[in-house]
Formats: sequence, structure tokens, C-alpha cells
Amino acid sequence: MALIEAFKQLLGDTAVLTHEDDLAGLTEDWRGRYSAPALCAVLPASTEQVAAVVRLCVEHGVPVLPQGGNTSLCGGATPSGQGTAPVIVALTRMRRIRSLDPVNNTMVVDAGCVLATIHEAAAAAGRLYPVSLGAEGSCQIGGNIATNAGGTGVLRYGNTRDNVLGVEVVLPDGTIWDGLYALRKNNTGYDLKHLFIGSEGTLGIITGAVLKLHPLPTAEAVAWLAVDTPQQALDVLGLFQAACNSRLSAFELMNARQIELVLEQVPGRRCPVAQVDTWHVLVELSDTGEPQELAAAMQAVLERALEAGLISDGVVASSEAQRKAMWLVRHSVSEANKKAGVGLTSDSAVPVSVVPAFIEQAMAAVRAIVPDLTFIIVGHMGDGNIHLIPFFSFAAWDAMPDRDVVGQRIRRAMNDVASALRGTFSAEHGIGRTLTGEMSRYKPPIELTLMRAVKEAFDPLGLFNPGRVLPPAASEDIRRAAPVSSPPIATSHRGD
Amino acid sequence: MALIEAFKQLLGDTAVLTHEDDLAGLTEDWRGRYSAPALCAVLPASTEQVAAVVRLCVEHGVPVLPQGGNTSLCGGATPSGQGTAPVIVALTRMRRIRSLDPVNNTMVVDAGCVLATIHEAAAAAGRLYPVSLGAEGSCQIGGNIATNAGGTGVLRYGNTRDNVLGVEVVLPDGTIWDGLYALRKNNTGYDLKHLFIGSEGTLGIITGAVLKLHPLPTAEAVAWLAVDTPQQALDVLGLFQAACNSRLSAFELMNARQIELVLEQVPGRRCPVAQVDTWHVLVELSDTGEPQELAAAMQAVLERALEAGLISDGVVASSEAQRKAMWLVRHSVSEANKKAGVGLTSDSAVPVSVVPAFIEQAMAAVRAIVPDLTFIIVGHMGDGNIHLIPFFSFAAWDAMPDRDVVGQRIRRAMNDVASALRGTFSAEHGIGRTLTGEMSRYKPPIELTLMRAVKEAFDPLGLFNPGRVLPPAASEDIRRAAPVSSPPIATSHRGD
Repeated sequence: MALIEAFKQLLGDTAVLTHEDDLAGLTEDWRGRYSAPALCAVLPASTEQVAAVVRLCVEHGVPVLPQGGNTSLCGGATPSGQGTAPVIVALTRMRRIRSLDPVNNTMVVDAGCVLATIHEAAAAAGRLYPVSLGAEGSCQIGGNIATNAGGTGVLRYGNTRDNVLGVEVVLPDGTIWDGLYALRKNNTGYDLKHLFIGSEGTLGIITGAVLKLHPLPTAEAVAWLAVDTPQQALDVLGLFQAACNSRLSAFELMNARQIELVLEQVPGRRCPVAQVDTWHVLVELSDTGEPQELAAAMQAVLERALEAGLISDGVVASSEAQRKAMWLVRHSVSEANKKAGVGLTSDSAVPVSVVPAFIEQAMAAVRAIVPDLTFIIVGHMGDGNIHLIPFFSFAAWDAMPDRDVVGQRIRRAMNDVASALRGTFSAEHGIGRTLTGEMSRYKPPIELTLMRAVKEAFDPLGLFNPGRVLPPAASEDIRRAAPVSSPPIATSHRGD
Repeated sequence: MALIEAFKQLLGDTAVLTHEDDLAGLTEDWRGRYSAPALCAVLPASTEQVAAVVRLCVEHGVPVLPQGGNTSLCGGATPSGQGTAPVIVALTRMRRIRSLDPVNNTMVVDAGCVLATIHEAAAAAGRLYPVSLGAEGSCQIGGNIATNAGGTGVLRYGNTRDNVLGVEVVLPDGTIWDGLYALRKNNTGYDLKHLFIGSEGTLGIITGAVLKLHPLPTAEAVAWLAVDTPQQALDVLGLFQAACNSRLSAFELMNARQIELVLEQVPGRRCPVAQVDTWHVLVELSDTGEPQELAAAMQAVLERALEAGLISDGVVASSEAQRKAMWLVRHSVSEANKKAGVGLTSDSAVPVSVVPAFIEQAMAAVRAIVPDLTFIIVGHMGDGNIHLIPFFSFAAWDAMPDRDVVGQRIRRAMNDVASALRGTFSAEHGIGRTLTGEMSRYKPPIELTLMRAVKEAFDPLGLFNPGRVLPPAASEDIRRAAPVSSPPIATSHRGD
């Protein structure tokens, strides 16, 4: 085929993958849920090569699918199986740290850099790149930026969006936009960078970025708390914010069932507090400076919380080993939950102040569909980002005849509650292909209209990652008129 | 006129200003530099009224000029005098604090709220809204957002952009977009909010916003340092960032001439250090917690700086009165400079690491135009934002026959140096009408093309604040081909 030949001429034979075996890791997502053929995959080695690839795709009218580390949780980075098979543009060969300026606290990187590599390069210069997530050993910074990745550092440092000062983008017509500004202040027209951040490859291919660096923390204090209710956790959060300000770097909430599952399923995990049957909070302070200062600050807040009757127990880690052990419990939740059964995770965020209301109302809404259901609850409470997980044993799930419909109704119910509380159905995972229906249902029509206007203006041929992020134009009218298989369960429980 | 009658019907007679006397404060900017007639000014009292006003303007094909506190420094908020006289939409009647959520650390406000009112409301709830600037007693939050206002809190808290979670906008077709999200995480499509922030009224009228609040600092430490060179100031900045992290809330640089002028021109000001003939740095730490901790941190860094030979003198304020006296010197610079002569201020920002190079190269470039010129230098060094001010006595300026041309060449020379260092010609003031020529000269054509595509998509009739931000489409070809009255002075001195 002419296009593939042209790619080979441009990039060399080895940089154009067409054989099924070579494509296997690129045409299927890492969880094995989505798989569809690509025309081929290309591995450009420079921004100019990416631009040339795009121009060839435009010439041949073939869709372009930018792919980072292929760690999407919502099918955003693999072929859709609809329309013309796309060209996957993978930036794995573009993984240079282009430069690091410790005085300006910035780093310029190729988009194909793996996140962990960026962490290491920053640390070697005594700096921190603060976005940290489970997939950091394989996800690429270009994908992080294209999806505005969240993770565990958001409470203190913000999302990826807040840690990117500039981007280099190959636009849908093959033009390169060098927006690699390394400035803290720049009021010269519309901030285009923010359009590309979070656009999931639908407006262009991010090929490089200027990242913001921070001082590398030299001290940490970690504590594990037992609280009776989410509301008490919220009150404790308020105490920490008032006393510790930006030193508060994590405030994670877990319910009893979550801890029980970790203890049951993952060998070697211990509950840091005596009582398991309670709500649990993992709190972390971090800072430059001396560890004793942080430990004293932690102690002072915990004493106040105890006096106020907000916590029933609390343990401060007294060594690096204890700190690690506490975080290990938190980081074992995915493994535990996967081993124990089937969870229908939500990626909800609501205003922090209504997290307790969200948990209560969403549980009630789901129980109206499946009574007596168990819930796992784990979340970044400081960001209002709660993963509410209606949980089935494998046996119960397998025995359910209409589980797809029930699953869909359950997700809808949770998202309806979040929406009614002015929250969101996708806090950090993005839209990809799986949540375009939710976009139709929950976003105001005018917001979709504006987004489509942007898409149309930047990618008039519609070749960039088609079918992702934005639902087809007509869909919201249909969906709003007749909410598919979703009786008004959720909203009827809003007043609970 | 039919449109004015329609406004009166909609808003009531008193909310439609047509008489010259009533319009005086709205059709001229506060510095008296720009003045042109408006068709009328309207004072809507609600978002719905703003929307109705816009729909009437569209119907009559009349331009819409959103106006906040009319404190623009670049003629962005008053009529241009070109084309049809616009309708000024002033939101002075929309000044409700709609709600404040201390647990979510957010505040929802009408766009007409004066910034100082927002500070007070936040402080009353024990919270900080951190954007602070000279005009805060009269500028409105809607204008702050439309211009992405900077100010003195940027080093720690970022620009206005970083402190806005959601916006409510009346779009150019009169539709209301309720984007008043109060979420820390929300990955559901393109982040439209960031398009409106900094768009200077060219994409719609911001009518409301969700602001991010922070803990109210309870402790401050302020010091005044004498350093020999900007490079030493930069080295001291590095020490503070490493040791004090986000507690560092200000790092302001001033040269000797700036301090001399303050002492000469403003009664009651004293230089905090013994030697005036040096470079000066004002540094501030702030935090929740105890003042002694901050004082100790300040002391520790200053000792390290002294040992390293980076500072020749340093005074730590030992009382609130001394802290205020130090800040008074810094805040007296505008008054002093205005009294003493004519300054051609730049609003440059460069990467922090090249601030010393920028100062040296820009001074050399200007002196190639006017030898032996005096410079005032004052800036937010921590943000890389330097106001370099070639300075003339009133007599020298008046005696210069071709001062407009010289002024233009001098500004160009400074901006050329900033641009060569990948800096910007407008760090915090925006574009308005005065800098659209600089947009043509310094922005890559593709960036202007993308911005125009956004403008076209959102405001196809071109009725919103026409002539601001974006230069006419043909202009950059012309300007690039023949740089008006600007010989290649600046770039020839880049290697100095």
C-alpha cells in the first residue's frame, strides 16, 4: 500500500510495524478489553518525522491515533474498530530529556519519555516532578499530558495540567507548534496549551513539553487514623489544612471493607491501627527541612483531633519502614480488589465538602438496584475524588443473568448522584471511548457545542483519534430524551 | 434609537447610560490615555440580563465591550474609536458573593465583585484569596479573570488562572454557559475555562466564577538584602527555594537607582540597609503556624547566604512595623518614578535562570539607541518578571524631538531581547489595544492562526471587543517583512 511504503521511505523499514505480532501490544489495551486492527504503527524519532507522518495521513485521508504508554483505563489509545483502520503513532523512540534548568525549575522533555525516567532525572538534579501514578513505570509523559493525569500528588501539586508550562504539538494539518515556553507569566492571547492538555489526542500529537519542577522534599511524616464516619475524616482534613497548609501532601480515605480485603488477599499486610471495623485515613506531610518539624506538626494536629473526638485511634509512623508499610496497605487495594471479586469502580469527584453526602446518597441509589450490596470505598479525599466500588463476589457476579444491564444501571446511579451534587463522572481517568455516552448525558449541551467548535476548528477533517472524547453530534438529544436502560433510581434518592 | 429603547425596556431607564457626563468614567481609561465614544453603557443586574443584552446587540449588529473596574494598563476596556461605537457592558451592579464553602475552600462570586471585597469575605472565613495587585480597591474579579491578572502573590500561588476553578460566561450568541464547577479534578473533555481566562472579553462576558481559597497565613517573615549583582540575587533565590519551599511568598529585585528615587521622591521612606548603591532584594516568607519558625528559617538561609558571600548586608524585620516599612519602600516605586521623570516600562518575563542575562543584554540594546541612559529596574524576580525601565528626566524627554519614534525603538529593543531569550513582551498586563503589533511581531504565525480559529469559532460575527488581543489577519506578513522603524539593534547585542 502506498501510504505504508511512504512511511517506510520516511522512517526506515524497522520504524513501520505492519505484522500482527509486532502490532499486538499496540492494538489491544493493557487490560485486554479493547482490540481492533490498525493499518500500521509508526515509530517516528523526531518531531519533524511526526509532522511528516501526519501530512502523509492527511494526504491519504487515514485516521491518526496517537499512543503513549498504552495505559488508558477507558480505551482511549487503541483502535476503535470503526471506520478506516488508523495509523498508530507511537513515540517510544522519542524519549530524550532535552534539557533541565534547575534554576528555572523546568525540564524540557520528549513526549515519549516514561514518567519514571522523568522522576529520576528530576531527582538527580535535586528536584521533584510531582505527578505520580500507578502506571509510572510504563506511561509516557505525552499520554499524561494528553489525559491530564492525576494520581497521588494532586492535593499538594495539582494535576498534570498544573505542572506543564509549555507544549510542542504536531497539529492535525502537520504543522508543528513550538509552544515550549518556560515562563511563569505570559499574558499574550489565548492559552492554547490548556486546550491540548486533556484533549486525548483529538486535537494533535503532543511531541514535547516543558515541565515544572519543585524542590525535592527531604522530610516526610505519615500517620494512619481511625475515624467513625467520612464526616469526621473531613473535619480532620480541615484541621490539617489549617495547621499544615501546603505541607499536607496526601489524605486518603478507605472504608473497613477495603482494609479487610487487603488483609485477606495480600500476604504480609497489617492494619496499622488495632480496630479494622472503622473508616481509615492515611495522611502524609512532606516538606524540605527537618523531619522533626513535620513530626511535631503531625503530633500537634493529631492531639487536637483526639481532643475534639474526631479520631478514635491514630498511629504515627516512627521509621521509614513503618511509613512504607502504611503506604503498602494503601497501594495494595487494586491487587486485593481484583483477587477478591468484581468491583464496578466509579471515578467520581465532588466538592470536598459533600464527600460524605455523596457516599451516603450513592450507596443508597445503588442499593435500590441491588439490595444488600457490599461497597468498597477508597479515594483521594483531599481532592474530593472518591472511587465508590459496588462489589460482587465472583460467584454472585457470575450468577447474575443480566449483569451488563445491572452494571450499567449501577454506574449510572452513582454518576447521577455525583452530577446532582455538581460533581463529575470522570475525575482523573478521562473519557476515551467508554465514557462518551456519559458526556452526552451529563455535560450541558452548550459545553459540547463549544468543544465541537474547537474540534472542528483544529481538526476539520476529523482524522485525529475519531470517536474519542466527544459523542456524535446528534447523540445527546436522543439520550436525553430516552435515558437508555436507566430508570430514575438515582435521582429519586437524592434527598436521603 | 431602537436598541437603546430596547435596553431601557429590559433593564430600566437608570441602567442605561447615554449622557456624556454619565459615560465619562467608562469611555476613557483611568490614566486618561484612550478615549472614544460608546453607543451607551448598560448596567445589567443578573446573568440573564447580560444574556438578553448580548442578544439585543447581536440582533442590531453592535459591538459588545465588557468592562470591569476599567483599570487596564493597555487600553483593553474602553472603546477603540474604530468601527461602530460599542455598547459597554459594565457589571458594577453584579457584586454578590454568591456563596463561600470553607470546607471545599471555594467561593462563588459575581464577576462585578471588587477584588478587595473578595479578600475581605475570604478573610472573614479564615481563608485567603491570594491574587493581590495595586488596583485591588477598584478592579473587579471579572476583569482579573478576563486578563489573567498577576500581582504579588504569583510566586507562591500562581496567577489568577491558577486560582479559578470554574466560570459562568455569556457567550457571543447570548447563550449562558454555567461552568461554575467547584472541583479539583474533572477530566471531561477540553478545559474551556482556560480559554476564557485571559481572553480579554473577546470570547464572551464572564459573569461569575468559582475561586480557589487557601488557608489564611498566620505568620510572616520579611528581610531586605543587599547583593552586588542580579546573579547573586538569583543564587539567594535558589537557597530560599531549597530551604523554604512554598513558604517563599515574595522575592522582589530592585536596583540602586530605584531605591534612590524612592528616597528622593517619597517622604518618610528609609533604605532598610546601610548601603543604597547596590542591588536590593525584598524577600518574604509566609505560612500558617508560628512566627518564630519562619523567623528561624529566614535566619538560617541568610546565614548560609552570608557565608557563601552572596549578600553584603541583610536586615530581618523584627516587628510588624518594620515589615510594613520594608514593603512601603517596594510599594512606593510607582509614585517615585512618576514624580521623577518619564519611564518606558517593559513588562518582560524570561526564564528565571536568564534574568541576569536579560537585564544586561536589554540594557546594552537600549544604550545602543540612547547612550548613557539611566535604568530603573524593579521586578518579581521569583517569577522571571522584570520591569526594565529606561528612564528620562522630564527635561531630557521634552527636549527630544523624535521621542515617539525613540520610545518605540526602545520598547522594541527590550522586547527583542526578551524574545531571543524565549521570554515574553507581556508577562502580566495583557495585550489590549496597545500590544497587538507585538503579537504580530513575536508570536509564531501558527499560534495566531490557532487563536483566530478559536475566535472565529466562538465569535463568528466578531462583535466581542473587536480589535483587541488579535492583530488583523494580514498584519504579521507586513510587519515581519518590514519591521517598522526598528533597525536590528537589539539582536546585534545578544552576545554581550
